[in-house]
Amino acid sequence: MKYGRGILKDVTGYVPGEQPRESGVIKLNTNENPFPPSPRVAEALQELDVEGLRRYPDPLSVELRRACAERYGYPSEEWVIAGNGMDELLAMALRAFVDPGDAILTPYPTYILYETLAKLHGARAVVVDLDDSFQLPDSFVQMPARLCFLPRPNAPSGVCPPRAEVQKLCETFDGLVVIDEAYADFAEDNCMDFPQHYDNAIVMRSFSKSFSLAGIRLGIAVARPELIAELLKTKDSYNLNAVTQHVGLAAFTDYEHMQANADRVREGRQYLTESLQQLGFRVPPSQANFVLAEWNGSPSAGALFEELKRRNILVRHFPVRRLEHALRISVGAPEENEAVVNALGELVG
Amino acid sequence: MKYGRGILKDVTGYVPGEQPRESGVIKLNTNENPFPPSPRVAEALQELDVEGLRRYPDPLSVELRRACAERYGYPSEEWVIAGNGMDELLAMALRAFVDPGDAILTPYPTYILYETLAKLHGARAVVVDLDDSFQLPDSFVQMPARLCFLPRPNAPSGVCPPRAEVQKLCETFDGLVVIDEAYADFAEDNCMDFPQHYDNAIVMRSFSKSFSLAGIRLGIAVARPELIAELLKTKDSYNLNAVTQHVGLAAFTDYEHMQANADRVREGRQYLTESLQQLGFRVPPSQANFVLAEWNGSPSAGALFEELKRRNILVRHFPVRRLEHALRISVGAPEENEAVVNALGELVG
Repeated sequence: MKYGRGILKDVTGYVPGEQPRESGVIKLNTNENPFPPSPRVAEALQELDVEGLRRYPDPLSVELRRACAERYGYPSEEWVIAGNGMDELLAMALRAFVDPGDAILTPYPTYILYETLAKLHGARAVVVDLDDSFQLPDSFVQMPARLCFLPRPNAPSGVCPPRAEVQKLCETFDGLVVIDEAYADFAEDNCMDFPQHYDNAIVMRSFSKSFSLAGIRLGIAVARPELIAELLKTKDSYNLNAVTQHVGLAAFTDYEHMQANADRVREGRQYLTESLQQLGFRVPPSQANFVLAEWNGSPSAGALFEELKRRNILVRHFPVRRLEHALRISVGAPEENEAVVNALGELVG
Repeated sequence: MKYGRGILKDVTGYVPGEQPRESGVIKLNTNENPFPPSPRVAEALQELDVEGLRRYPDPLSVELRRACAERYGYPSEEWVIAGNGMDELLAMALRAFVDPGDAILTPYPTYILYETLAKLHGARAVVVDLDDSFQLPDSFVQMPARLCFLPRPNAPSGVCPPRAEVQKLCETFDGLVVIDEAYADFAEDNCMDFPQHYDNAIVMRSFSKSFSLAGIRLGIAVARPELIAELLKTKDSYNLNAVTQHVGLAAFTDYEHMQANADRVREGRQYLTESLQQLGFRVPPSQANFVLAEWNGSPSAGALFEELKRRNILVRHFPVRRLEHALRISVGAPEENEAVVNALGELVG
């Protein structure tokens, strides 16, 4: 490509899970919430000022950021930034804090987007293997890098490194620690208080999973105001549209609805974990809204993925090292969880 | 800032025009459309699948891109990319086609975001002064650079370089030519056909101005499929939320509504131009939805800006070289245009 950049030559871009538009598909492949968002979302859309859409939105999303600051115990919106999905915030963290050529640190296996973003930015990804239980090895905290992406819970394992490990990382690591808490609302604890204690901690949250709002694209990051100020420099002038700001705020004020849904997801997760273990799968203890089902037997995990797809059940299979013998299955509604367990029972039974 | 990047030190980020939330303000400062969006926007919001917001949106915005391709005479959606506002597409053009350290070319004065984006990307901005009539000087096409941002009509002058000039640029310039047509729906002609003829032309459009939808954040770019493919590599996985895709498509299918609004804006532009000229302002011939009113007299343009603001009329004043003696006034509804003319008449009369 005459006009292309060298660094993009071997970049294919992130490939998201399939989004079939047909109905009748049991969709357990992209970690969406099986339960609807708060009823306040529909109300917020009803009362939306449609004529007002001719105006630019608040470029700084102040109301939304203020609500997040209050909820998470921070003094002002200066501790929070809102993004067009958490993915935008991950990319902005590189643009704000990493020079091309610099190293960034990530565990492996993990959310594949981190490496893609590093490539797009011209940064080097230093990748450290998680141990057999998907926990951080001791060597992790000692790697030199400008920034570290640490998902907690991790994807696609669902495993949470202990809080004490992440504390040690913040204390020892020389660069910034981006704690990706996209799935934290389904976990037993979280690190949302870390920015109070560590000037190098950035905690990110997504509205896509626990708030059942993947469709509106909304994520937030919490950190010291001086870090937020740098991130703000790199954002598009009006990065968050008016509808997302309005609807996101409405959903956020109904925290109880989100928590009730998260509880139901946890029940489904327990059912999936136990049922799959009974079928012979190895399932690491997940604190997210999905489980990783490892399967070394026959038929292969890849074949199981295809067979499920033929039955209109979509899960995720990553044909890469350490994940080739596994399926990542999102927690669905009870009948969806039963369907995937029954289908797998027939296939491996 | 311990963790900040050197290149961001002198970056303040783009400062958008004020967005007061109070009513009673005549807001002619951010080139918004004074007329409401198509009634189909409200209908689209009514019929939106609210529960479906728990799902991720189409990551590729295929329906919307296909509609744009059809309307503008291109064979498929592969010629189009959709962005979270045109600003995202401008930033993506740098990420896809410009290495840090490379030069980009822009005229001066122009949309200040180009230079901000260049700084954020670590690119060098080569800036060439427009002539006294805000037209491109002959030297422009000969500057070596990786990419050129050419707004047509230009902001904040509203002046259009002739199509033949832009053709010459595409033929002569060694890099990519990004033709920013954010305001083209208000102009007499446009360059939307250029990607058919030039493999280095990228034409961008915004839904913020002519479609009265600044609030939803939507822009598109049209170019050869091999250029679009590079841009797609650099976009966030799900860069366009479900509501914007749905509402944007609804508005786009009501092209007649947009054109009727653009006609009304053109009438207001003529009224503003003639009235301000009668008051002694120099007003370059604008083909956009704003006029630049140059004023070398007393009180100063800066003072006029402040006086208008005191009267709850917001316009834009850029205290930078070649614009310090000018006001940029967005075309408003007829009564808003009269209000600003009457106020200026009192202030300079």
